Amino acid sequence: MKLHGYFRSSASYRVRIALNLKGLGAEHLSHHLRKGEQYAPSYLAINPQGLVPTLEGDAGAIITQSLAIIEWLDETHPEPPLLPKDPLRRAKVRAFAQAIACDTHPVQNLKVLARLRELGLPEDKVTSWAAWANSEGLSACEKLIAKEAGPFCFGDAPTMADLCLVPQLANARRFGVDVNAYPRLLQAELAAKALPAFADAAPGKQPDAE
Amino acid sequence: MKLHGYFRSSASYRVRIALNLKGLGAEHLSHHLRKGEQYAPSYLAINPQGLVPTLEGDAGAIITQSLAIIEWLDETHPEPPLLPKDPLRRAKVRAFAQAIACDTHPVQNLKVLARLRELGLPEDKVTSWAAWANSEGLSACEKLIAKEAGPFCFGDAPTMADLCLVPQLANARRFGVDVNAYPRLLQAELAAKALPAFADAAPGKQPDAE
Repeated sequence: MKLHGYFRSSASYRVRIALNLKGLGAEHLSHHLRKGEQYAPSYLAINPQGLVPTLEGDAGAIITQSLAIIEWLDETHPEPPLLPKDPLRRAKVRAFAQAIACDTHPVQNLKVLARLRELGLPEDKVTSWAAWANSEGLSACEKLIAKEAGPFCFGDAPTMADLCLVPQLANARRFGVDVNAYPRLLQAELAAKALPAFADAAPGKQPDAE
Repeated sequence: MKLHGYFRSSASYRVRIALNLKGLGAEHLSHHLRKGEQYAPSYLAINPQGLVPTLEGDAGAIITQSLAIIEWLDETHPEPPLLPKDPLRRAKVRAFAQAIACDTHPVQNLKVLARLRELGLPEDKVTSWAAWANSEGLSACEKLIAKEAGPFCFGDAPTMADLCLVPQLANARRFGVDVNAYPRLLQAELAAKALPAFADAAPGKQPDAE
């Protein structure tokens, strides 16, 4: 398999964790987002959104969107599971993951921040926009799992929720958010980061890290 | 079941279509987003994000996030299926749905547009922001299904992809996007709107429509 990504892309980071948890090797192909390499025609041919990640399966399968990739990995390589078996529990995990992947991350991604700059917003306001998006999302996430047994987001093993949480907390810190406001999220992050699958997927450990 | 929503919310619209396709009745509870009713403490208690929709199942189950709700409905009421059986085809449908639900809709939702106004952006620039988000997302979606057999997004029956597409096209038109640039998407929309499940879920047909 090949994973098209970028070390700092939090959506790529989610998929790197999933691959590691499943024990799957992949060739990592880096597309430098700040240099606009994601808009190269050869890349747009496989990902018309010009976003990372994209997974190329061994049989030529091409899958875009990090959560779709993670669900595919979970369906084709079921162990260890990244979603619970019970439908309602699955829905809770998916809702948490989507609170990050739909409502938090896309509002603070490179493309949106670049657009804000084009509109004339000064850099400090661009950063506070990104911090706002992270705070809004993470405070809701804190409440979504307040009553869930830990140490992970949903119980004693990582799920798709943790795969989304850990990269998003890294973004939040980068934009200056005080993450101490989210003790339950930090508990889950601590448990996750103790696992090599998470630690090895960190942006700073990737070959394209700057 | 109870569906907390709002007539014009495109995420609520997706779930209304899913309920209709499954032949499931639900009590519709409207939360007027422009009046801020989604921030009432009683609603935040079930949806800490202060977003619609939220589904309350008959046994007290509470599910947030439209795609998580739709997957739950599909897992608990399998007919007619909203996702294909084959894992790769499922991934393609999910990726299309997420291109809308993650990368398009949240960048142009009420909350983000309100934030842009708070930053001093004049109304015409707020509208062109929303139009930009819709154009970016829909042009990618057009390419994602360019080679897929129609008339629906993925073949001869509606999937979760169509549930996301139809409400998003309504948003795009509302923000002045020329949707004629997306003939394949319009083909899918035409097929979908011919079905009562889609037609009956339209914003204008809801009791809270203004």
